[in-house]
Amino acid sequence: MRHFLSITEIDSLINLVSDARALKKSPFASKDLGRNKTLGLLFFNNSLRTRLSTQKAALNLGMDVMVMSFGKEGWALEYQDGTIMDQGTSEHIREAAQVVSQYCDVIAIRAFAGLKDKEKDEAELVLNGFATYASVPILNMESSLGHPLQALADAITLAEHSKNTKPKVVLSWAPHPKALPHAVANSFVEMMRQQQAEFIITHPKGYELNPAITEGVQIEYDQNKALKDADFVYVKNWSSYLEYGQVLQQDPDWMITQEKLGKAKFMHCLPVRRNVVVEDAVLDGHQSLVVEQANNRTYSAQIVLKKILEEIKE
Amino acid sequence: MRHFLSITEIDSLINLVSDARALKKSPFASKDLGRNKTLGLLFFNNSLRTRLSTQKAALNLGMDVMVMSFGKEGWALEYQDGTIMDQGTSEHIREAAQVVSQYCDVIAIRAFAGLKDKEKDEAELVLNGFATYASVPILNMESSLGHPLQALADAITLAEHSKNTKPKVVLSWAPHPKALPHAVANSFVEMMRQQQAEFIITHPKGYELNPAITEGVQIEYDQNKALKDADFVYVKNWSSYLEYGQVLQQDPDWMITQEKLGKAKFMHCLPVRRNVVVEDAVLDGHQSLVVEQANNRTYSAQIVLKKILEEIKE
Amino acid sequence: MRHFLSITEIDSLINLVSDARALKKSPFASKDLGRNKTLGLLFFNNSLRTRLSTQKAALNLGMDVMVMSFGKEGWALEYQDGTIMDQGTSEHIREAAQVVSQYCDVIAIRAFAGLKDKEKDEAELVLNGFATYASVPILNMESSLGHPLQALADAITLAEHSKNTKPKVVLSWAPHPKALPHAVANSFVEMMRQQQAEFIITHPKGYELNPAITEGVQIEYDQNKALKDADFVYVKNWSSYLEYGQVLQQDPDWMITQEKLGKAKFMHCLPVRRNVVVEDAVLDGHQSLVVEQANNRTYSAQIVLKKILEEIKE
Repeated sequence: MRHFLSITEIDSLINLVSDARALKKSPFASKDLGRNKTLGLLFFNNSLRTRLSTQKAALNLGMDVMVMSFGKEGWALEYQDGTIMDQGTSEHIREAAQVVSQYCDVIAIRAFAGLKDKEKDEAELVLNGFATYASVPILNMESSLGHPLQALADAITLAEHSKNTKPKVVLSWAPHPKALPHAVANSFVEMMRQQQAEFIITHPKGYELNPAITEGVQIEYDQNKALKDADFVYVKNWSSYLEYGQVLQQDPDWMITQEKLGKAKFMHCLPVRRNVVVEDAVLDGHQSLVVEQANNRTYSAQIVLKKILEEIKE
Repeated sequence: MRHFLSITEIDSLINLVSDARALKKSPFASKDLGRNKTLGLLFFNNSLRTRLSTQKAALNLGMDVMVMSFGKEGWALEYQDGTIMDQGTSEHIREAAQVVSQYCDVIAIRAFAGLKDKEKDEAELVLNGFATYASVPILNMESSLGHPLQALADAITLAEHSKNTKPKVVLSWAPHPKALPHAVANSFVEMMRQQQAEFIITHPKGYELNPAITEGVQIEYDQNKALKDADFVYVKNWSSYLEYGQVLQQDPDWMITQEKLGKAKFMHCLPVRRNVVVEDAVLDGHQSLVVEQANNRTYSAQIVLKKILEEIKE
Repeated sequence: MRHFLSITEIDSLINLVSDARALKKSPFASKDLGRNKTLGLLFFNNSLRTRLSTQKAALNLGMDVMVMSFGKEGWALEYQDGTIMDQGTSEHIREAAQVVSQYCDVIAIRAFAGLKDKEKDEAELVLNGFATYASVPILNMESSLGHPLQALADAITLAEHSKNTKPKVVLSWAPHPKALPHAVANSFVEMMRQQQAEFIITHPKGYELNPAITEGVQIEYDQNKALKDADFVYVKNWSSYLEYGQVLQQDPDWMITQEKLGKAKFMHCLPVRRNVVVEDAVLDGHQSLVVEQANNRTYSAQIVLKKILEEIKE
C-alpha cells in the first residue's frame, strides 16, 4: 500500500487481520525491515493510545521514531491555495509536507474534525494535504472522517473472539457530555461492511451517520431490540451529523448496562467516560474487550507499517 | 523488584549502591538486557534531570523509550471509583494504566503533590493508581510523597565521597519564595535511616516533616548547632507539613553560606535558587557535589531499571 | 571542532561542503560512530525542519536522541550572575548546562532573538551560557545571531547547483507581516564571505544588517539592479537592525516574482509566506531549491555531528 488513509482502501480485510494475528505472535520477527527507516508522528491533537501504540509498532519493526506535537511545537499551517499569507499562518502545507518527507520514510498524522464546519471537515485538509504533497507514504492516526487503525484493531479483536462465522455485531450510540467526532464510528462501519456478520447500528433519531457510509446497513432506533442476542456490542458516542457537530440529547437511558449487554462482548475504542457511556460493572467485568482492543492497536499499526515498508523496499 | 515506588522498599541499600557504582564503571555492559523492552515516561509535571537521566539510563540498558507530557498531550484522568464521568475528566486511571501497560514493559511516572489537600496528596492518586491497575512495573520519578531515584542517587554520592564509616550528615531546610513539596526531603530521610551515619535534621519550628517519616531521627532547631562538624550538608526547602503547603517564613538567615558550611560537602537535588537557598560561593566552590549528584541520577535509575528487567526476564 | 556556534568557526567551508556531499551519498556509513552517544535537543522556541533534520542526522550516525521543549517542559532559567533568585527563574544556567552535560554527549540549542533588547540578544545568553558552562560540545540550532546549520545547508545546495566557479548570488530582503530575527541572514552572509562568488545584498534603506557582519559586502538598494543576471536569489525577511526589531515597511513591491527571478535559482530557508515573500509561481516552479535546501539540513547537521563525534573519540 502507498498511503493508509481509510479502512476502505485495503485489498482484503480478512488477509490483513490474519497477517496481523501472525505478527502478534512474534512481534520482533521483522526488526530488520525498518532498519534506517524513520517514522514521523505528527500530532495536531492530543493522543495516548495512538501515540504509544504506533510508536511501539514502529519500534517492533526496527524503525526510528520522531514524535512532534505539531500544533504546539511547529508552525501554523496554511491549507488554502493562492492565499496571500499575511495573517496567522506561517507555512503552507505544500512546503510542510515536502519538507517532512525529506526526514521521514513514513509520516503518520492525527488531525481531528473541528465539528464547526462540515464542508471543511469533509475536505480533510490536513490528512489530504499531506497525502497530496508528501513524497512518502502517509498513515492516518485519526482524521476528521476516519480512524482506520482503530477499525483494524477492532477487526483483529473481533476475529480473536468470534465463536461463529457470522456473529451479530451492534454499533450502539451512547450519551456523552461533549460533541465528539464521527471518525471512529465511520471507520467501524466501513470495516464491518467488509465482514461476514449481522451488523446493526442503533442510535436515537437525529444521530444518523453520513448515509454514504452507512449505505445498506440496518439502522434500528430501538436500542433494546437492536441489542437482542448480540455477540458483540461496540459502543461509541458521536455528535449529530445532520445538525452538524451538535449534541442533540444525552439521554442516560442509552448508557450500556450489564443487563442490556446480556451475554455479548463489550467493545469501546477508549477513552471512555464511566457511568455515562457504560456502567462500571461492564468495564470491570469479564465480557469487556477494551484492553485487548487497545493491545491490538500495536498490531494494527504494525501490520500496516510492515506492508508500507515492504512496498518501499521493492 | 516489581514496582519501585519508595526508597523504603529496597532490600539492602548498601548492596544497591554498590551495584550502581559497579554499573557506573561500565554503563553499556548490559545493553542486551533491554533489547525489545520499552520504557514509557509519563510526566504530569515538568522535569529536566529526571527526564533526561531516566531516559539515558534506559538507553544505556538498550531499552527503547517513549516520553509523554501526559498532562499536555494526553487526556485528563479520573481517579475516583464509581464517579459519573460527565465533567472534566475523559479517562479513568483503571483504563489508562491497563492501556499503557499494553505498550510499555516498564512505566515511569512523575506526579507532584498539589499541596492544597494533604489527604489527597497522601493518597498518591496517580502513582498508586498506576501501581494498582498497571500490569507492568511502575517506577516513581517523584510523586507527592517521595523521590526515591533522587535519594538513591544521593546515597551513591554519599558513598563515593564518604571518608569515614559513620559520617555526620545534616539535612537543612532553606528558604524559598514558593511552596515546595516534601518528596525529596522525605525520601532523603528514609534513605538516611538505612545508612550508617550520624543524621540530623534542622529547620525552623513549624517545618517538621511527617513524624511517621522522621521517627527516631534527631531534629535540631538551631541550624548552627546542627551544622557543626558536619561531613555532608544536604540542603532543601519544603513547605510546612503541619500547616499543609504553607510558606510560614522565608528567613534569609537559613540560607547556606560558605561560612556555615565549614569543611562539609554541599548537596542539593537541583534546581536550586542561588543566593536564596545557598550562596554562589558554595555552588561554585569545590565542596559542592550537586553536579555529581545529578550525574548519579543516571546510575540510580539504571540500577533500578536493571533490577526490574532482570526480574521480568525470569 | 569543539562547539559549533557560528559558520565563521569552520576551518574550510569548501572541505566541509565536500565532506557533507560525500556523506549524503551514503548517510548510514558511519553508524558505528554514534553508538552509545546521546544528542540532547533543547528547544527554547518552536521548530519543524531543525528539529526533524537534526534528529534524523543523529539517527543516521547511530546516536540516541533526547528531545525537550525546554521552555514548556523544563524550568525557567536564570542567566545573570550574582542574582538573588527569588523571582520567576528556578535554575541558573550554570547548573542547567553542567547537569545536561551529564546525560548528553552533545547538546543542541535553539533560542531565538527576542528582538526587544539588542544588547541582550547580542549577548546570546542561552547559547553562550550553555557553551560556557557545559562540559560537552554545543551545537547551534539557531540563536539570536546566527543559524549556521542553515547556512551550511545552503552552501551544500549552492555547490550542488552551481554551474560556474564564481556564481552571482543575491540576498534579497522581502516583506513580512511580523518582525523576524536576523539569524538566517547573518549566517548566510558569513557563509557567502567564505565563498568564491559575486555576492550582493539588496534591501530597502533602514534594513541594513549589522555592519560588522556585512563588512566588505556590496549593498544595493535597487532590487531590480541587484537581481540582474543573478544565478541564485536567496530571499529572506528580517526586521530592522538599526531601529532594532522594528518592521519599518512591508512594501509588496519587494516580493519576489517569477519575472524578477529571471533565470536564477530561488532559495529560502522556510517557512515561507506565499504571495507575501514570494509568489506561488516561483515556489511551484522548477527554479525553486527550497525542498533541496530542507533536505540538505540533514547533511549539514550530520557532517557537523560527525566532526564533533570524531573529535570526542580522539
